[in-house]
Amino acid sequence: MKLLRVGPVGSERPALLDQDGTLRDLSGLVTDVDGALLADDAVLSRVRDAAGSGELPVLDPEGLRIGAPLGRIGKVVGIGLNYFGHAAEVGAEPPAEPILFLKAPDTVGGPDDTVLIPRGSVKTDWEAELGVVIGATARYLASAEEGLAHVAGYALVNDVSEREFQIERGGTWDKGKNCETFTPVGPWLVTADEVADPQALAVKLWVNGELRQDGDTADQIFPVGEVVRYVSQFMTLYPGDLIVTGTPAGVAMGQPEPKPYLRAGDVVELEIEGLGRQRQEFKGA
Amino acid sequence: MKLLRVGPVGSERPALLDQDGTLRDLSGLVTDVDGALLADDAVLSRVRDAAGSGELPVLDPEGLRIGAPLGRIGKVVGIGLNYFGHAAEVGAEPPAEPILFLKAPDTVGGPDDTVLIPRGSVKTDWEAELGVVIGATARYLASAEEGLAHVAGYALVNDVSEREFQIERGGTWDKGKNCETFTPVGPWLVTADEVADPQALAVKLWVNGELRQDGDTADQIFPVGEVVRYVSQFMTLYPGDLIVTGTPAGVAMGQPEPKPYLRAGDVVELEIEGLGRQRQEFKGA
Repeated sequence: MKLLRVGPVGSERPALLDQDGTLRDLSGLVTDVDGALLADDAVLSRVRDAAGSGELPVLDPEGLRIGAPLGRIGKVVGIGLNYFGHAAEVGAEPPAEPILFLKAPDTVGGPDDTVLIPRGSVKTDWEAELGVVIGATARYLASAEEGLAHVAGYALVNDVSEREFQIERGGTWDKGKNCETFTPVGPWLVTADEVADPQALAVKLWVNGELRQDGDTADQIFPVGEVVRYVSQFMTLYPGDLIVTGTPAGVAMGQPEPKPYLRAGDVVELEIEGLGRQRQEFKGA
Repeated sequence: MKLLRVGPVGSERPALLDQDGTLRDLSGLVTDVDGALLADDAVLSRVRDAAGSGELPVLDPEGLRIGAPLGRIGKVVGIGLNYFGHAAEVGAEPPAEPILFLKAPDTVGGPDDTVLIPRGSVKTDWEAELGVVIGATARYLASAEEGLAHVAGYALVNDVSEREFQIERGGTWDKGKNCETFTPVGPWLVTADEVADPQALAVKLWVNGELRQDGDTADQIFPVGEVVRYVSQFMTLYPGDLIVTGTPAGVAMGQPEPKPYLRAGDVVELEIEGLGRQRQEFKGA
């Protein structure tokens, strides 16, 4: 299924895109697309049946904002330098074990919402990423297979990052990862049954129409199941948590000088095979 | 006022400790002690009037669990190396600007809840800290005075940390700051009007009865108002966000070898002047 949330910021309603591409209202069946739904097989099954029946109310997509496809997110865990190509372009060795950082859920927005360039920023950068949504509580998992079994679905994420804040201002990466609007998610939460192989997805990103990232999740150093297993050794993962699994080569930081960091007026578009497409206008905060 | 939340994990009810030290039920007046309450002067004022009236229902504290005094926490921002004494004991220069990290709200527990030592941990450490609760949305604040004006209240926090995970496992500090149960908060959220000077509070922590931390917030490198101002340049702070403002000297990491890291069976007690006292038993996860 392709689950989504539509409507104004803060009052999105649950919806799904059915097999014919028709937008259907789910608000008669569930209150939100969130961890509680993803952890409840009985309700998910009712949603699936309703989606197949063709009887859910149709929504007119015209003028309707698409929100992040996941509400009440508990935490957003980021994985750093998780593509061989990206590690190489920034001059880093592939890490021996995953690098973790956190993004606050309040930075999450819809796939086409405006992104704010922070005041004082000169190094705002893009990162197209495969987002992994947790469907069951994960503690000290023993294997990558167990890791995959705890994944409810996938979503496209732009892990927007301010490189000066992240790297040159002392301390940890979080300082450059948590500016307001820095985590566009969506359009869809695609349930795991519809993603045959999360390690074979094309990842693309354009800035002002120019292709900047052209990667594939096959290049991930730590694949999705291993990432979930690894994180569960340090943090307990709960239904509705989101892991952003790193970005392929092609970010601004990896380019020759002068690096093409984002400026007000720039438009970023990105997509992952089967997970839909985002488009953000950047403007000053 | 001293606000708190009492009852079983996940179904705490709002309460307050009145001027006579009597525990009073607030659930007839407000649904929770959370950002929505702290941002609403009218409701806070009704709570204050009710507290003064002596007419709120009395709760019997006998056998009643005390939860974290703040529900629906949006994010927990940590400040690293923010006491001159602590920076010195770990051999670090006082930072030129605050070091930021994040703790997930799902790590927060009550002041006396059991803390789990992570599997594989050999360096679980304590950190008694002054917690600052945000009461109004803070973006790009211009001064430390503005920072202080956005503080709703204060709470005692143990910022439990696994030093090997934090420092020796690659990447950012978050890896050692986000294990399950690693953020005991409370017992009380003391409103800012009752804390005359947040830079003049004694901070103490004992392990198995031995005094380990004996500091004062006067030793903070970046005081509370400046911390709030600084964080607001990188992240938007919302009502109900919590900032843990660093720990004074006396952590296990700062001791001579063999460093006295925590083991199953250890008991940690801590207090900050006017903010109450915590007691945690540590056990294996």
